[in-house]
Amino acid sequence: MNIGIYIYEQAEVLDFSGPFEVFSTAKRLAAQDWNVFLIAEKHAPVTARGGYQVLPHYSIDDHPPIDVIVVVGGVHTTEMHNTKVLNWIAATDKTAQYVVSVCTGVFILANAGLLKGLPVTTHGEDIPDLIGQFPELTVIDDKRWVNTDKYTTSGGISAGIDMSLFLVSQLQSLDLAKTVARQMEYQWQQSVS
Amino acid sequence: MNIGIYIYEQAEVLDFSGPFEVFSTAKRLAAQDWNVFLIAEKHAPVTARGGYQVLPHYSIDDHPPIDVIVVVGGVHTTEMHNTKVLNWIAATDKTAQYVVSVCTGVFILANAGLLKGLPVTTHGEDIPDLIGQFPELTVIDDKRWVNTDKYTTSGGISAGIDMSLFLVSQLQSLDLAKTVARQMEYQWQQSVS
Repeated sequence: MNIGIYIYEQAEVLDFSGPFEVFSTAKRLAAQDWNVFLIAEKHAPVTARGGYQVLPHYSIDDHPPIDVIVVVGGVHTTEMHNTKVLNWIAATDKTAQYVVSVCTGVFILANAGLLKGLPVTTHGEDIPDLIGQFPELTVIDDKRWVNTDKYTTSGGISAGIDMSLFLVSQLQSLDLAKTVARQMEYQWQQSVS
Repeated sequence: MNIGIYIYEQAEVLDFSGPFEVFSTAKRLAAQDWNVFLIAEKHAPVTARGGYQVLPHYSIDDHPPIDVIVVVGGVHTTEMHNTKVLNWIAATDKTAQYVVSVCTGVFILANAGLLKGLPVTTHGEDIPDLIGQFPELTVIDDKRWVNTDKYTTSGGISAGIDMSLFLVSQLQSLDLAKTVARQMEYQWQQSVS
């Protein structure tokens, strides 16, 4: 099970570090065959918001096959118009089992042509923009995350942790998701509402 | 206000990325004169748990004066015997306004000779070890964080987010701490119990 978290310049730190913590803790505790990694457009260090520099494990040109792709939020306004990345996301979508976003990552998925007609969510502050820019989406404003089989989108920043725990419950078991939350001493907002 | 987060090999990802997110969001929203940075023993990339690689902004030999030092947890058992780092922490303690730990970072502070006679906490799983190794501490096992003026220690992993929000309330205002939690869509466990 290869879980790739896509990051870019000015991504929000907790949007990717929260899911990484959840999935890598699940791997440590039980899911030993999981491979959890960060992907960026290029191999160079990525400067996330606040000047936090992280090294991607792979670029979009050389990563292993992806089963779960997580596209994070942050300052998404440039990234959502990066044609090379949008094409890569659309191609990855064709073979991935799960395609998910955290926070404003949903703008990138939507601009890659995904999610049409589906219920989705994002950071509370960005709900009006999402509705305005993508009238073909059904935007939900009162859930921590919204799931429709293959696609899951979460609310802002820390909601990505709750959504990642949900994905652990889907990929492995509810018991493991609860164990991971306990290990992280995180109060999982388990209900989707 | 210089806020330095000390990281090391096999540090827990959320232990440092959570506080970084809190403090850098506070800076973005209001505390513009804050400088939030990661410090490691050396300049090289640090490999945190799960293979997550992050670049420190400074080494312990070349950082700006530190007002708030955050020492994080993770696989602390090697780091707590790193004499150079312990000496650096003891020296930093003499001039810092606040000295805090997340999760098992408390073992490093304690081994640097700090916290004697004070109430402290750590990850629930590590409470027995902390009591066994440092009988001079008063170990509390039912709080998200424990504060005694200069020193604050938090429980495991995500409790570092709650503690960092508390520090924002001390350094700036309760209003700003609540605003940061809202921006992060984080349900702050504001009570210390």
